[in-house]
Amino acid sequence: MTELSPIRIAFLLFPDVTQLDLTGPAQVLSRLGNATVDLVAKTADPVMTDAGFALLPTATFADAVQPDILCIPGGFGVNDAIEDDATMAWVARVAPGAQWITSVCTGSILLGAAGLLTGYRATSHWAQHHLLSEFGAIPVKERVVIDRNRATGGGVTAGIDFAFTLMAAIRGEAHARLVQLSLEYDPAPPFDSGSPARADAATLARYEAMAARAAPGREARTRAAAARLRAG
Amino acid sequence: MTELSPIRIAFLLFPDVTQLDLTGPAQVLSRLGNATVDLVAKTADPVMTDAGFALLPTATFADAVQPDILCIPGGFGVNDAIEDDATMAWVARVAPGAQWITSVCTGSILLGAAGLLTGYRATSHWAQHHLLSEFGAIPVKERVVIDRNRATGGGVTAGIDFAFTLMAAIRGEAHARLVQLSLEYDPAPPFDSGSPARADAATLARYEAMAARAAPGREARTRAAAARLRAG
Repeated sequence: MTELSPIRIAFLLFPDVTQLDLTGPAQVLSRLGNATVDLVAKTADPVMTDAGFALLPTATFADAVQPDILCIPGGFGVNDAIEDDATMAWVARVAPGAQWITSVCTGSILLGAAGLLTGYRATSHWAQHHLLSEFGAIPVKERVVIDRNRATGGGVTAGIDFAFTLMAAIRGEAHARLVQLSLEYDPAPPFDSGSPARADAATLARYEAMAARAAPGREARTRAAAARLRAG
Repeated sequence: MTELSPIRIAFLLFPDVTQLDLTGPAQVLSRLGNATVDLVAKTADPVMTDAGFALLPTATFADAVQPDILCIPGGFGVNDAIEDDATMAWVARVAPGAQWITSVCTGSILLGAAGLLTGYRATSHWAQHHLLSEFGAIPVKERVVIDRNRATGGGVTAGIDFAFTLMAAIRGEAHARLVQLSLEYDPAPPFDSGSPARADAATLARYEAMAARAAPGREARTRAAAARLRAG
């Protein structure tokens, strides 16, 4: 076997992250070959996710090794993360040295707030997708968008498609196909309600009500972050 | 809003679990409404997964609350788990009180070894699927199989389809459609190599070689577990 070049992937880990935004692509990318996965947080303490259990950081902002791939997951905690200076300082510090600057779900809102999507095509969770342009990004309604070294995925489960696409770009399609087989990634959703284009009106209305309760004011906070970016 | 009845889901957490076998369905099932997710392990120490980072138990065999849904994930560590008396004793203790006895990926091999699939239709990761019959289960080549209160999913990513199917059975299809929209579960694999029926021969051969290196003797160990079950 040819030895693959070592590659280090760092996921930002913050409170109230949508855990599958992180753990889905982490599963795929851990099989890049000769890969190291870091979960990087402000402190070494466990970080509570949206799913009712915590994830354990492998490194902190102070001691994390420079990653080759930086990946920002999303979730209702993303606005708090954007408003946290230490978090944004770490992203600003490591992004220039990363080969790939990436996100899943509303992680792209954080990349945008860091000024890392200005002039780049990008995607996000469908419910926040319209806010990408606030940060000077070019919103694209695709599940995975690659523009130069920026790779962004849509909402939550899109992180798996994102990771396979990125894997093929880095290690080639034959490697990605092997990992797809190992993870039996042959999805068969029992219903067809995974996009706002096909969900029925009642489901869409229930989602909007749920999101408003779970993260009141998130749109205003995102717009305020965009205003701060524009103000420099 | 009508208050949904409380429901508690316990995932068995063991060393070298395939982390997405657990975290995929945990993400979906955490949105059952009024749900508690437990990750139950032998001790409270972090448990290393196959993806290079640990998961943190929320409970131990000694203190875990009786779950309504028991879910066994899979992975290359499953044979060690089967050979661990404390692990199998916990499964045997809580299964009779669970409303649903479930697995993802090769977790069904552990359920089989515990005698919990005898006479039940079930599925597993494609590479271990042929071993289900060793435990008296009726192997079905489907991504999700429900037979009475047993629900089993195929390999790794099938855990997401499994969880949506189970959610609809428990909370109804309208609730499952809402969660599908929230998780943007509208998968679009960039390649078509997620099942042995469609992967090419070279990819299949590379998988078999990789699995033989990663878990030498796993088939013999699984057959030995089946022999022990038959011997009572």
